[in-house]
Amino acid sequence: MAIRGVLMHQLVKDLLNGNRRAAARLITIVENEDDQKRSLLKEIYPHTGNAFIVGITGAPGAGKSSLVDRLLQQIRSDGLTAGIIAVDPTSPFSGGAILGDRIRMQDHALDSAVFIRSMGTRGSLGGLSRSTREAIQVLDAFGKDIIIVETVGVGQSEVDIVKTADSTVVMLTPAGGDSVQTIKAGIMEIADVFVINKADLPGSDRSATEINMMLDMNGEKPWRPPVLSTVSINGEGVNELWLALQEHRQYLEESGKLLEVRKQRVRRELTEQVEYLVKTRIWEDVRDTIELDDLVEKITKRLQDPYSAAGELLEKINFFKEDQGEGV
Amino acid sequence: MAIRGVLMHQLVKDLLNGNRRAAARLITIVENEDDQKRSLLKEIYPHTGNAFIVGITGAPGAGKSSLVDRLLQQIRSDGLTAGIIAVDPTSPFSGGAILGDRIRMQDHALDSAVFIRSMGTRGSLGGLSRSTREAIQVLDAFGKDIIIVETVGVGQSEVDIVKTADSTVVMLTPAGGDSVQTIKAGIMEIADVFVINKADLPGSDRSATEINMMLDMNGEKPWRPPVLSTVSINGEGVNELWLALQEHRQYLEESGKLLEVRKQRVRRELTEQVEYLVKTRIWEDVRDTIELDDLVEKITKRLQDPYSAAGELLEKINFFKEDQGEGV
Repeated sequence: MAIRGVLMHQLVKDLLNGNRRAAARLITIVENEDDQKRSLLKEIYPHTGNAFIVGITGAPGAGKSSLVDRLLQQIRSDGLTAGIIAVDPTSPFSGGAILGDRIRMQDHALDSAVFIRSMGTRGSLGGLSRSTREAIQVLDAFGKDIIIVETVGVGQSEVDIVKTADSTVVMLTPAGGDSVQTIKAGIMEIADVFVINKADLPGSDRSATEINMMLDMNGEKPWRPPVLSTVSINGEGVNELWLALQEHRQYLEESGKLLEVRKQRVRRELTEQVEYLVKTRIWEDVRDTIELDDLVEKITKRLQDPYSAAGELLEKINFFKEDQGEGV
Repeated sequence: MAIRGVLMHQLVKDLLNGNRRAAARLITIVENEDDQKRSLLKEIYPHTGNAFIVGITGAPGAGKSSLVDRLLQQIRSDGLTAGIIAVDPTSPFSGGAILGDRIRMQDHALDSAVFIRSMGTRGSLGGLSRSTREAIQVLDAFGKDIIIVETVGVGQSEVDIVKTADSTVVMLTPAGGDSVQTIKAGIMEIADVFVINKADLPGSDRSATEINMMLDMNGEKPWRPPVLSTVSINGEGVNELWLALQEHRQYLEESGKLLEVRKQRVRRELTEQVEYLVKTRIWEDVRDTIELDDLVEKITKRLQDPYSAAGELLEKINFFKEDQGEGV
């Protein structure tokens, strides 16, 4: 363990020195829920908070990957570095093993300022949004200026993942009439920029009009999401998207909204850490005190219900003490 | 509040007397995370554990709804009653508001022994699998013999939802070559019965052969999932599916596996309840003791990291007491 701790410390040092392999290995470590993960995240934390995080979400086939590739070119030509995390909540594959990503990586393989990584659901979806957050931390400490989190839109999971972004781009296509449908599904609230991709297809103008109407009905807001048109395969409109993202960033910074958003994120992180510690400790105490198997048996036989059993269990390990209030 | 408690008690009484409207209202209550939910679940708990729970999962368009409808006819002709919970993790809609379900319900609307309900993601996906579990409890107490949980397959979410089932049917179609792909995606482990639906399409035999080969490579298991072929639109093979489910149930009961599976479920439920109580209490204490805003600000400014802050916070509310071990 001590040796592993030293190795981990060396990996973090390498990461901060810009070593790509260290970045890749550290992301694998956070993905695998390694027990050294917490000390690793603690060590890199002071080096985070500098990257601007862009979330891009859209249905399968909306053209996310090619849009992101085009956006990368814009970012690079401005002299900025970038990290891409491609999240697919419907896939169990991780680590850039997906064919499409292997092809994509070739384009940028020689560009050391770009780092691309794909992540799938190894464990639960909750686990995926956590490891996405932690991979962002790694790339942030790695010194990337812009981190793009690209995620396939499948209901709620994308919303959870997108919460980690400073700016969120929602991509739609004119085909399939998914524009209005998608907006109904709670996507409206998370979009800072709308993009109608495949704008060369029929119906593109109508989609844009519909979204604009919805946004106008939504009343005055300090930030009114622009509705842009792109053709990702030839790069049309991608420059406008990059400008819109920079404008949104400026708005966030000047309005103090960026600090607010990031505080919310810190609060969630702190909450999770507290609950993690509490759970770990509680179950240690329970294991030392209670014959859990007997209790489970009793509940399975309907001799007790899990709701009152939970309360009694906590009383037994003295969690609900009389003197509980002494800290007040 | 007291009046609401009385109303809730009356609703539970009505449920146990077979009142459909009470069942529908109680499911709405568990879905809405009402604060009376726990006392409601506690009250119905002794009346649960009698239903046999079948999970059916497959990609969108695999024909789940029509297969379930056909299966319902089999169940009904055996004189059994049934509850259907149609879960769509990609949809934010709930309560049978989906058009397809309204059409389906008409078929069984006059049959009081069938209860159909659809559920979507109101909140998080975690919330969806919890409310699915709780809706099952309601229908179980309602006295349904068989409860079918039908869920759209999108990666991990279906696995979580399927954990609530005693028998799980994985549906595939010959088209799109999704058979092998889906199996790779961790579906192999959750299937008790495989169904190749749309077996009248070309490629059906090949899909069945592939799955059988995979199962054979998997080595000897006490239960070897059968691979069935169905054509759900005309009912072909549905009788065999119903027989396979009964056979699997018999296997579960005779091998003691059913008790084991249900104990695991109770353990998860108890764990969740304990953690719910602990979290609630901890955050009450934190609110009374700590200026959380200051701490969040400090962490946002990178003056502290969330990992060590979490530990210090718990020390402040005396969670990590010296005398913590007294229960040992």
